[in-house]
Amino acid sequence: MGRALAGALLAAGREVTVWNRTPGKADDLVARGAREVSTVAEAVGAGGLTVACLLDDASVREALAPVMPKLAGGTLVNLTSGSARQARELAAWAGEHGVRLLAGGIMGVPPMVGTPAAFILYSGPRDVFDGVVPALEPLARPHYVGEDPGFAALYDMAALSGMYGIGAGAAHALAMVHAEGGDVETFSSEVLQPWLEAMLPVQVALANVSGSVPAEFNAAMQATGLENMVAASGEAGVPAELDGHLRAQLWRMRRAAGIVTG
Amino acid sequence: MGRALAGALLAAGREVTVWNRTPGKADDLVARGAREVSTVAEAVGAGGLTVACLLDDASVREALAPVMPKLAGGTLVNLTSGSARQARELAAWAGEHGVRLLAGGIMGVPPMVGTPAAFILYSGPRDVFDGVVPALEPLARPHYVGEDPGFAALYDMAALSGMYGIGAGAAHALAMVHAEGGDVETFSSEVLQPWLEAMLPVQVALANVSGSVPAEFNAAMQATGLENMVAASGEAGVPAELDGHLRAQLWRMRRAAGIVTG
Ligand SMILES: NC(=O)c1ccc[n+]([C@@H]2O[C@H](COP(=O)([O-])OP(=O)(O)OC[C@H]3O[C@@H](n4cnc5c(N)ncnc54)[C@H](OP(=O)(O)O)[C@@H]3O)[C@@H](O)[C@H]2O)c1
Ligand SMILES: NC(=O)c1ccc[n+]([C@@H]2O[C@H](COP(=O)([O-])OP(=O)(O)OC[C@H]3O[C@@H](n4cnc5c(N)ncnc54)[C@H](OP(=O)(O)O)[C@@H]3O)[C@@H](O)[C@H]2O)c1
Repeated sequence: MGRALAGALLAAGREVTVWNRTPGKADDLVARGAREVSTVAEAVGAGGLTVACLLDDASVREALAPVMPKLAGGTLVNLTSGSARQARELAAWAGEHGVRLLAGGIMGVPPMVGTPAAFILYSGPRDVFDGVVPALEPLARPHYVGEDPGFAALYDMAALSGMYGIGAGAAHALAMVHAEGGDVETFSSEVLQPWLEAMLPVQVALANVSGSVPAEFNAAMQATGLENMVAASGEAGVPAELDGHLRAQLWRMRRAAGIVTG
Repeated sequence: MGRALAGALLAAGREVTVWNRTPGKADDLVARGAREVSTVAEAVGAGGLTVACLLDDASVREALAPVMPKLAGGTLVNLTSGSARQARELAAWAGEHGVRLLAGGIMGVPPMVGTPAAFILYSGPRDVFDGVVPALEPLARPHYVGEDPGFAALYDMAALSGMYGIGAGAAHALAMVHAEGGDVETFSSEVLQPWLEAMLPVQVALANVSGSVPAEFNAAMQATGLENMVAASGEAGVPAELDGHLRAQLWRMRRAAGIVTG
């Protein structure tokens, strides 16, 4: 991911200094004009904005701890994934060193970086965000989500959770079709994908934290339909591990219909 | 749903005869030109194509059993939802009475009928489908999925299963944001919906019946991310009943990474 980010900045004509724990992984970036340095201190000393994208929160702390005094008075943009709590603690730690932290969550895979398909969630002080937007814009569309440094990570994780729902539903649907001797390829491209595209806005709009379901969607009828679907899945021999999204929805619908409480 | 179907045919200028078990529910259709009859025999006797859309398979058999001799030599289109097995058995039963069955699955809710947002899956003899397409086109885009009369129901149920995955993922995502004090409305409209729209084709393409995951998606890394997500969800106090889609994906990723077998 670090390579994709640096590549997008180079493509936009920016001056880029790169550091990686294991040297020699940036040859293609160097060929495109990046300057590779062998210590974090040199990278931070290059001036300008410091952007970190490492494996996890612990690797960011480990790599940056020795150079935090050098960063004092400056801004650190952290695009490493983690939890909301880790982001809040990192912001506090940076603050103790006089460093202002902007926390980011990259919504996209490396090939999407620098294209309109990706966006990056940012949270932290609004003025810090406004100040660095011009520098960060080539990476992906910047989307500010609030002062709480944990929000970028929280929304990032929640959005991934939503995405895994699509994957779980699609995998189960294909397993059903396969188990009953249907044509998986045709079903996937001609039925499943257009149907999911049509229903996505409705399904997102129906999700809420109150647990309610509009009367016209008849939670009791949906619960019955889901019970039949879980039963049909089992009868077809689809592993029960794959139907978790159906059981989650069944629980929601039973609760909305007053069949279970909680 | 029967009212929506008849309404779409009337809107297209077709001659429509309607019957419903409880009379008087078709006044609006009659005002728009439909002829209401009080027995199934009169409806079937009106000639033309017979279309059934009742509660379930049992209600179709109950309503039509007395008039099957009258339908002999003709075609019955059944748009009532059910299982693949029910559709296959209904086709056999119709065949015994000399009636050719076209089985359908309506992909849409009543307000979508007659609009480009809905489509109808059909399965059964190809020549029967081709013969009735001109009559059925006003209902919704007809999509033929094969000779097996069970396929329309199978694909219908599988597509609904996929759709419930979106709902399960979205509900869990909002619950996470709510539990951690985020802004649910902003997250839903500005982050979740655009992100799901961007990732839907990727997630459908990644679903397969082999259980494999392309190397660049790193199943082991995804499994670790999913474990962290399930843990974060529990720590945030989100009910475990809501995270079924995450557990289903975790099982898939563990299996793809060789961590579990099965
Ligand atoms: N890939 C994606 O699709 C994607 C999408 C969104 C967000 N992200 C996030 O982006 C971040 C990077 O992901 P990635 O895909 O680039 O992972 P990756 O390919 O595994 O790269 C991890 C990087 O972290 C470095 N690193 C690990 N431990 C370190 C330590 N203790 N000190 C210094 N450097 C260390 C590694 O250096 P070495 O080369 O020396 O091992 C490597 O450069 C992660 O937080 C990930 O969640 C990734
Ligand atoms: N609504 C949707 O969003 C939707 C979407 C796709 C597919 N479908 C399918 O469409 C079919 C109809 O759904 P719906 O929403 O119209 O349901 P509904 O509003 O409950 O209507 C059910 C209809 O079936 C009749 N009926 C029930 N038992 C009967 C029996 N034993 N003999 C004769 N008629 C009987 C009812 O007649 P009375 O008026 O006399 O009770 C009523 O007209 C179902 O298979 C459903 O799964 C519905």
